[in-house]
Amino acid sequence: MPAQRVILISTPDKKGLIYHISSVLYELGLNIERNDEYVDREHEHFFMRTHTRGYVEDTILADKLKAALTEQSIVKIQPVEKKRIILLCTKENHCVGDLLLRHDSGELNAHIEAIISNYEILKPLADKFHIPFMHIPVGNLTREAHESRLLEAILPLKCHYLILAKYMRILSPHFTQHFGHNIINIHHSFLPAFIGANPYKQAYERGVKLIGATAHFVNEHLDEGPIITQDVIHINHSYSWQDMQRAGRDIEKIVLARALNLALEDRIFVHGNKTIIF
Amino acid sequence: MPAQRVILISTPDKKGLIYHISSVLYELGLNIERNDEYVDREHEHFFMRTHTRGYVEDTILADKLKAALTEQSIVKIQPVEKKRIILLCTKENHCVGDLLLRHDSGELNAHIEAIISNYEILKPLADKFHIPFMHIPVGNLTREAHESRLLEAILPLKCHYLILAKYMRILSPHFTQHFGHNIINIHHSFLPAFIGANPYKQAYERGVKLIGATAHFVNEHLDEGPIITQDVIHINHSYSWQDMQRAGRDIEKIVLARALNLALEDRIFVHGNKTIIF
Amino acid sequence: MPAQRVILISTPDKKGLIYHISSVLYELGLNIERNDEYVDREHEHFFMRTHTRGYVEDTILADKLKAALTEQSIVKIQPVEKKRIILLCTKENHCVGDLLLRHDSGELNAHIEAIISNYEILKPLADKFHIPFMHIPVGNLTREAHESRLLEAILPLKCHYLILAKYMRILSPHFTQHFGHNIINIHHSFLPAFIGANPYKQAYERGVKLIGATAHFVNEHLDEGPIITQDVIHINHSYSWQDMQRAGRDIEKIVLARALNLALEDRIFVHGNKTIIF
Amino acid sequence: MPAQRVILISTPDKKGLIYHISSVLYELGLNIERNDEYVDREHEHFFMRTHTRGYVEDTILADKLKAALTEQSIVKIQPVEKKRIILLCTKENHCVGDLLLRHDSGELNAHIEAIISNYEILKPLADKFHIPFMHIPVGNLTREAHESRLLEAILPLKCHYLILAKYMRILSPHFTQHFGHNIINIHHSFLPAFIGANPYKQAYERGVKLIGATAHFVNEHLDEGPIITQDVIHINHSYSWQDMQRAGRDIEKIVLARALNLALEDRIFVHGNKTIIF
Repeated sequence: MPAQRVILISTPDKKGLIYHISSVLYELGLNIERNDEYVDREHEHFFMRTHTRGYVEDTILADKLKAALTEQSIVKIQPVEKKRIILLCTKENHCVGDLLLRHDSGELNAHIEAIISNYEILKPLADKFHIPFMHIPVGNLTREAHESRLLEAILPLKCHYLILAKYMRILSPHFTQHFGHNIINIHHSFLPAFIGANPYKQAYERGVKLIGATAHFVNEHLDEGPIITQDVIHINHSYSWQDMQRAGRDIEKIVLARALNLALEDRIFVHGNKTIIF
Repeated sequence: MPAQRVILISTPDKKGLIYHISSVLYELGLNIERNDEYVDREHEHFFMRTHTRGYVEDTILADKLKAALTEQSIVKIQPVEKKRIILLCTKENHCVGDLLLRHDSGELNAHIEAIISNYEILKPLADKFHIPFMHIPVGNLTREAHESRLLEAILPLKCHYLILAKYMRILSPHFTQHFGHNIINIHHSFLPAFIGANPYKQAYERGVKLIGATAHFVNEHLDEGPIITQDVIHINHSYSWQDMQRAGRDIEKIVLARALNLALEDRIFVHGNKTIIF
Repeated sequence: MPAQRVILISTPDKKGLIYHISSVLYELGLNIERNDEYVDREHEHFFMRTHTRGYVEDTILADKLKAALTEQSIVKIQPVEKKRIILLCTKENHCVGDLLLRHDSGELNAHIEAIISNYEILKPLADKFHIPFMHIPVGNLTREAHESRLLEAILPLKCHYLILAKYMRILSPHFTQHFGHNIINIHHSFLPAFIGANPYKQAYERGVKLIGATAHFVNEHLDEGPIITQDVIHINHSYSWQDMQRAGRDIEKIVLARALNLALEDRIFVHGNKTIIF
Repeated sequence: MPAQRVILISTPDKKGLIYHISSVLYELGLNIERNDEYVDREHEHFFMRTHTRGYVEDTILADKLKAALTEQSIVKIQPVEKKRIILLCTKENHCVGDLLLRHDSGELNAHIEAIISNYEILKPLADKFHIPFMHIPVGNLTREAHESRLLEAILPLKCHYLILAKYMRILSPHFTQHFGHNIINIHHSFLPAFIGANPYKQAYERGVKLIGATAHFVNEHLDEGPIITQDVIHINHSYSWQDMQRAGRDIEKIVLARALNLALEDRIFVHGNKTIIF
């Protein structure tokens, strides 16, 4: 059976790119299942995602594409396969549970390799679904020492994505640099933004009429990485801040799952501090 | 200065389409400003919209593209220009007024050639913005006779699109066939759907929690043509049916304007009874 | 500790209602935690929901309220307590699983007494959360016979609400009449509405731009009972009908959970074929 | 004909409030058309809005209500009438034009007394609708001097609300203090928030997936007053920042009109830095 691959090309825009790239694919006899392009006109940069089917070696395909493009180009060739992910969490069950259910029904196109937490609270939930649960408490450890233990647990599993499914600790740049743009975080979002403890309480005092959630890649600035998906729901003054939290959980789990699905299908480019999503 | 054109190609899917099409564009020295493709996998049909810039005759471009494609293919080449539109309306001012404001500020990429109504109510509004207003009353006319008068007024203006901006009369297939997929209508939409007089009153009695609007192309079945844009807003039991109407007007005018903008930029394919929108 | 109660009053509107009702509550020394009223001006009907706290017998409270109101009035006094619910399902896990997670974390203010299905597929899921699962297959049974078995399983559990969490069989009026307005159903909703097999396939062919979900009470007309909650998400032509189904599942589970929470807090009046929700 | 009034009561919560207030209304023979209450449980504060109909002097009504309440209570009695408003704007026509259209069709329950701008750009639009337009340029004036001229124009008109319909200058606390909570502003809102010049450009660079608008009362901190209404629309990477601006205009005008309608119907309480809206 012919192999399916997703080709991701990111390159400074210039005339003839689509022609040169499609020539390579045509000569190699590849079928194009789906093709998307976008040119960022502010920066004259070209993005192309091509889902192909056909018989060809990855290395030959990559070499020919690189030969057709300039040196500044980035070419990635991804097999269409179930990816491996790890969930990092603290105490709340809504995001972890939602992903476990999707995993269980076969909807999630990934293997959940492990759930790791600084608390033991979600162990029974992981056990129900027979997913390895690792409890890595902080205790008296320094951030550096705790993160080292996390890395010792995470790195050997060679996962594609690390999902912060309501992991309530800040990760250092030292930690995040191991993962490139392969950490996805979900956090609440409000208009205006509220910083600090209990943002729902602050939002209550401010009388916001919308609460939202943002899923994003993590970079060295924890909550400021490239945005993948966002959504909001309408609320009103009759919501207590606990009601707002409850509503927030619903929007968080849906937004995180959407973002993860996009990542699992290799549909996201990161360029600068933004995403292009096909 | 090089001319800008939008090329729209609709063709049964087969291997090498992007390569063959991009070869033509490359050989003719055209720059691609924006390119979008979609393959409908249920029907193995390919759609491509390419915004190009360059020096070439339309007829040469069309001939070369047709030569590269099968006979079942449809190729349209549209100049990037302000299109001419006519608004057809009855009594309500919200859609007409909204389009007039957009026209007035230069936001609407179209010339409003005329506003035509079976009532005189919106004449003062048209006058404010110096748009020709034609009052074509129904009076004792048969539908056929009334539509003939409409056609006498409309056809000489050679417009690209006819916009039913709350035109509250049914148009016969005899009338609509003059316009292909170039009539855009806006109508309320509810879940469930309500047929007949005063749908807002019916929706009130049914206690709906959402009211919406759908903009669509008109075909021989008036409210069942290909959908362009849809949106909804949340309501609750405290809305009287007049409140629902008011809220409905807001969503109608925004949804109609969005649909029209897409049409004016040649971003819509109609295929069967659906749209593909780039 | 003083008991908390929710008082629900539905009565033809007349002058002095709030005064007369609040007099009763004041004389009985009840604190009002939250109070909501609504007058349906189309039908001159008054609705009031009062969450009270205080020491008084239910029967005394009810008698005094009835004495203050006309005979056409309906007065319900509900204790603030965890209600008992049963989930009825078929094969899909998204609604059942979502409610199980909420139950597990303590968010759902209800006891799930049982999960009943005509298939065994969701038994492992029920087992994970230690909820009794009853498999009542249809086999060669007539609808009447199958429903009798369902009733034999359901009625002894004396539940407050029966939740159709993607139960894909039609229930007869004979069945539903046992439950008053205490059956809640979730179903997909589309603009326009699609009837019959595989509505997602139909919606795909029609190119809808929104897919939604409606949670409603079940009456003798299965999908036409009073609407509790509705929501939609935006989609586009690039969604296959399977993508639409996946997106539909997300909106269904959220909308069902919202409706159930409202019912569990006695915040819904049903009047005619509509709901008033406080 | 009996007069219609809206009674707004804001008072620390205590037992018997509804009883005491409804006693006063009942004894004065007032019909209650609509009644809403809310208790803020975080601050034990009670809000009540009652739309009444009947024959009674405002002063007698106010005196009797005050006698029934504690000294910390605020009681406002508003006639149900068309209110007078002034629009303050700069160059953009979308909010001003939208309000003019609603005014023209009779939908807006207000008289627009004047449109005031630091530019002359919107004068032709005001003229079309025969609304007095005052051009008060900044020129070499200090902020203080310019605001004095604004006040000279505004204060004699004795308006109920001043609407900042895209007025792009900062107003000093000296200016705003003349208006209490009677200035309504509309501004874009993004997640995350962007400060400074051209927020749409910033939002583009950050790849936001939502753009929104917030209508709020103005207090001494210009963009941080109590929020009235908020809404968002979904966008994606293919939006240029000009596309984002265009979409932003649509959401801004709708959100501002919603907020204004709520204010005109006396449906908003301001308490601390938040609103309670009935």
